[in-house]
Amino acid sequence: MQLTMTVNLGERSYPIHIGRGLFDKPELLADLLTKGIPGSDIMIVTNETIAPLYLEKIQAALQNHRRADYRIETVVLPDGEKYKNLETLNPLFDALLNRRYARDCTLVALGGGVIGDMTGFAAACYQRGVAFVQVPTTLLAQVDSSVGGKTGVNHPLGKNMIGAFHQPISVLVDTDTLATLDDRQLCAGLAEVIKYGLIRDLDFFTWLDDHIEDLLAREPDALRYAIHRSCENKASVVSADEREAGMRALLNFGHTFGHAIEAGLGYKIWLHGEAVAVGMVLAARLSVRLGWLEAADALRIEDVIRRAHLPVRAPQDLTPDRMRELMSVDKKVLGGRMRLVLLRGIGDAVVTDAFDPDALDAVLETG
Amino acid sequence: MQLTMTVNLGERSYPIHIGRGLFDKPELLADLLTKGIPGSDIMIVTNETIAPLYLEKIQAALQNHRRADYRIETVVLPDGEKYKNLETLNPLFDALLNRRYARDCTLVALGGGVIGDMTGFAAACYQRGVAFVQVPTTLLAQVDSSVGGKTGVNHPLGKNMIGAFHQPISVLVDTDTLATLDDRQLCAGLAEVIKYGLIRDLDFFTWLDDHIEDLLAREPDALRYAIHRSCENKASVVSADEREAGMRALLNFGHTFGHAIEAGLGYKIWLHGEAVAVGMVLAARLSVRLGWLEAADALRIEDVIRRAHLPVRAPQDLTPDRMRELMSVDKKVLGGRMRLVLLRGIGDAVVTDAFDPDALDAVLETG
Repeated sequence: MQLTMTVNLGERSYPIHIGRGLFDKPELLADLLTKGIPGSDIMIVTNETIAPLYLEKIQAALQNHRRADYRIETVVLPDGEKYKNLETLNPLFDALLNRRYARDCTLVALGGGVIGDMTGFAAACYQRGVAFVQVPTTLLAQVDSSVGGKTGVNHPLGKNMIGAFHQPISVLVDTDTLATLDDRQLCAGLAEVIKYGLIRDLDFFTWLDDHIEDLLAREPDALRYAIHRSCENKASVVSADEREAGMRALLNFGHTFGHAIEAGLGYKIWLHGEAVAVGMVLAARLSVRLGWLEAADALRIEDVIRRAHLPVRAPQDLTPDRMRELMSVDKKVLGGRMRLVLLRGIGDAVVTDAFDPDALDAVLETG
Repeated sequence: MQLTMTVNLGERSYPIHIGRGLFDKPELLADLLTKGIPGSDIMIVTNETIAPLYLEKIQAALQNHRRADYRIETVVLPDGEKYKNLETLNPLFDALLNRRYARDCTLVALGGGVIGDMTGFAAACYQRGVAFVQVPTTLLAQVDSSVGGKTGVNHPLGKNMIGAFHQPISVLVDTDTLATLDDRQLCAGLAEVIKYGLIRDLDFFTWLDDHIEDLLAREPDALRYAIHRSCENKASVVSADEREAGMRALLNFGHTFGHAIEAGLGYKIWLHGEAVAVGMVLAARLSVRLGWLEAADALRIEDVIRRAHLPVRAPQDLTPDRMRELMSVDKKVLGGRMRLVLLRGIGDAVVTDAFDPDALDAVLETG
């Protein structure tokens, strides 16, 4: 079964296709990949890990497509967050220009969040903007980074500091790709899934509380449901606030703490989702301290996160002072004032700078 | 006298302020520079040539402004088209992040087209988009690159291949800056001024025919009028077609030929405006060959361009074959088909791919 939903953004609206085994249905795959693309020049961008798994299937589907005389080229980038920078974009720009790809070309991002963010940013910048299609192969990318049009690269002084808002023309999720995802990556993706329940969807959180073990066991129907419901939540938020003027900031729940952890560890050791998991626990605890959230709810949140095999405490070697310092550089600090996403209840998040700094200190001190 | 006009782009509309001696009126200067900026963090971006001339005036005006507790920082980039690349943006991103400038900061581009394009692109990408103000100091930048939101950098394989559409929040033109501009730069700017007359404003072209010598003599009222009328024309085109879906392509009159000349010379020796001047002559000749334009009009065009001390023939060492090859890589070649801007009359340009390639060959052969 294949299911399609829409991210409503006026003339920039686009479909998200979610299904099992899409990569093994060449005609359907090629149809979905090429629907709405402006021309016939396609550049697939992937990495060394993903290329051996899926690249051939995608290439073959496009090459044999009934409608096609597509020109299909591929760039394989190195795998890893440490390559998510401006320099790594150069071989991609070189390839596009060497092949004389024009403004009507389409970039296809085949991989996880790093590939999606970098390819999207290259598409935003190449000739001031060309089309791109997201084909996310990790849970994190499927529920988060490939939906919403945030693209970019890291700078040594901060994550995603250089980027653009650039919406894909479609997103194509084959849930079977999760079969090859390693356990830790799967769990890291679950952190963002849990986030959607916490910020705006109590029913979903309750479902997650009941089904987290099914997701860990990679039960296909459970995964498909979780991905679909996560994308619905994300699409709804993004439709209401494409450029993060307000409500979209809710999606950063756990992220100011999380980014501080990632930065403190030099973007090594911990995965993004792991850092966000701790960030959500800390944000829940701060909400309790402020009297906004019941202690029992915070414990329930911590329980679900722990059962998803995710960490619930910041790394030992990050002192509270260092955490605070790193949080203050986060790009959500607007005009010097730290704003956090906190909970009024499960499924009810708010963005606020109206919190007692002492309460934040206490949460950072006690972990 | 200071005059303000508006580029109408809905919520992205912005004013262009044009006046004499604005840099010597600190209160007015600071008012204009800071009107509409979202925060109080300002980064002035300029180059080694412009900094000694105007930087202190701008800094002093902002620092002493009655309303201000602005944080004002400066980055001075090397001067020249050869530094218009991704690498040169690094010190700017470093400076922004080192000073922890947030999303509400404003970049001020003080300089010619290179500074404007690079600063605009940095503003488009920094934290996925911050505000910027254009303060163009060359005629070319005042009438062309600083209006319309095209930003970007060059790639070794092509000019402006990496960029973004990002509108400034205002443009501030002090026509007195033209007093320090060297003759060749002034003439190169006149090429774009003449272009506006040719593509859509017969009356302006007639005025230019009568006043080109006044402009070369830097007669202030003539310069102000030419800048104002050029900006009006550009604003009108950009308002109708912000992202170059159609009509905006008219602004590329002479540019496909011109870009080929620039690329053929390795972006050295000739200035952009000089290459465009020849491009306009060639486009006019092709229009005559196609029977679209009267020969007398083409001669009149060539006469005005020559009187502006601009070249009217392509460089000797660029063969017709090489020109054709370079023209075919230009980014306006959509899906492999070359489109050119040609004239149906003076003040009446069209974008078309419906021209006889033999006629193009003949024009390239005979110069």
